[in-house]
Amino acid sequence: MSDDLTSIGQQILASQPFSQLLKAQISEFRQGYAELRLKINPELTQQFGFVHGGVLSYAADNAITFAGGSVLGLEVVTAEYKINYVKPAQGQELIARASVLSSGSRQAVCQCLVYCQDEQNEALVAVAQGTIMTLSGKR
Amino acid sequence: MSDDLTSIGQQILASQPFSQLLKAQISEFRQGYAELRLKINPELTQQFGFVHGGVLSYAADNAITFAGGSVLGLEVVTAEYKINYVKPAQGQELIARASVLSSGSRQAVCQCLVYCQDEQNEALVAVAQGTIMTLSGKR
Amino acid sequence: MSDDLTSIGQQILASQPFSQLLKAQISEFRQGYAELRLKINPELTQQFGFVHGGVLSYAADNAITFAGGSVLGLEVVTAEYKINYVKPAQGQELIARASVLSSGSRQAVCQCLVYCQDEQNEALVAVAQGTIMTLSGKR
Amino acid sequence: MSDDLTSIGQQILASQPFSQLLKAQISEFRQGYAELRLKINPELTQQFGFVHGGVLSYAADNAITFAGGSVLGLEVVTAEYKINYVKPAQGQELIARASVLSSGSRQAVCQCLVYCQDEQNEALVAVAQGTIMTLSGKR
Repeated sequence: MSDDLTSIGQQILASQPFSQLLKAQISEFRQGYAELRLKINPELTQQFGFVHGGVLSYAADNAITFAGGSVLGLEVVTAEYKINYVKPAQGQELIARASVLSSGSRQAVCQCLVYCQDEQNEALVAVAQGTIMTLSGKR
Repeated sequence: MSDDLTSIGQQILASQPFSQLLKAQISEFRQGYAELRLKINPELTQQFGFVHGGVLSYAADNAITFAGGSVLGLEVVTAEYKINYVKPAQGQELIARASVLSSGSRQAVCQCLVYCQDEQNEALVAVAQGTIMTLSGKR
Repeated sequence: MSDDLTSIGQQILASQPFSQLLKAQISEFRQGYAELRLKINPELTQQFGFVHGGVLSYAADNAITFAGGSVLGLEVVTAEYKINYVKPAQGQELIARASVLSSGSRQAVCQCLVYCQDEQNEALVAVAQGTIMTLSGKR
Repeated sequence: MSDDLTSIGQQILASQPFSQLLKAQISEFRQGYAELRLKINPELTQQFGFVHGGVLSYAADNAITFAGGSVLGLEVVTAEYKINYVKPAQGQELIARASVLSSGSRQAVCQCLVYCQDEQNEALVAVAQGTIMTLSGKR
């Protein structure tokens, strides 16, 4: 069931050209939770050599959409979110872990913790909170 | 002076590999204001054919960093922001217009209005608000 | 028409016990715009003598609900918002000026600028952005 | 030590006239965590009989200030936060539980979950995320 959801998640990611450009992968996807991963490469950085905030935002935004979609159905969008960058982002891999904090029939409020990982350890680099809505609710 | 600032802005953008990947341009940059533009192409879209939220977030985030930098000095980062997606984003060009709402010595609070433009008209697609900090203040 | 809206706004405020506790007034209310005012008194302050953030938040939250309600109909609530406190708040009167940035049939995204006023001048003390929803959309 | 912190927290609350007006209590205060409680009474409600959003915002804002202060030192303020209202708030008591997600020398990013409690159960009514700064960092 969860494997099925992960494979559906991979198909959705595969149908997002921008996610393909960034080579995002969905590594876990189950009821109330989604985890995205991106290999960090120089193309994703800013002028100080860290991962660009826009990449962290992309990852958080997309991860909370998946998390919300796991409880609302997959025809959903992020309506709004906020993100705090808490640490310069560097390492080998970016991991966005999103979970549902609260959900109704048309909306879910989700949180995402974004980490950077290298061989040794994992560091929290950003924290986000936002609203996912069904397309019917959004219209 | 403003032309000088625009050319400095272009150099900063040119030094951000992720901005190069997205082919972002700075079209206006002056005291308290910055405007970024991106040609919309299929690579920047999501599965429904609209510009991916991650691209809108990137544009808003980067534009407020520039706007804040115009009053704080250019060694700045976005500390946090929130964004509301208000309309599906489509057209030929994405324009992020950021202005400073308030500034001190180490922080500025900025707003960004993100538009999509085609031959006929311009539509507001996202609105953001966030904090820009000097690197010395952030540390 | 706008006078009618202001008088409806005053009735709504009068029916909110918490707004009565804080003695909030609606000083302007028209299509797309609402302005709330509170006399600053010691009861509204925190330990450093400034107006408590909770009061600024109340004012911003309520003002954007009214602004959103002016375009969506008056059965609305604030679904979410963010606020940046930009300056210590002191003076004689607090003024929250909210306007609609974008609206659809069930939601509006609004902004609020909160000022403190004394005899001499007016200072911007907080900036907020949030989503107003109709009760039917929220459910 | 934690009891000491709770008693310091009570003194700070006691020195905030607005917290006195709302009769807020600090029920737990330790390294990285703070819990505020308010008895729900009719004065705190809006026109539909639920606790006013301004009260939920006050509670979340103040609770994250305390949580941040527990790691940064007590001369801190909330610089910004966002809040999602997830359920109409009613019951006997409001409980705001704030924890530190990340902290540096001058800032902490905190989260707050706000609950309403009656005899039977406890319901999550709002979720907030924000930045706490030392007064020296804020200036």
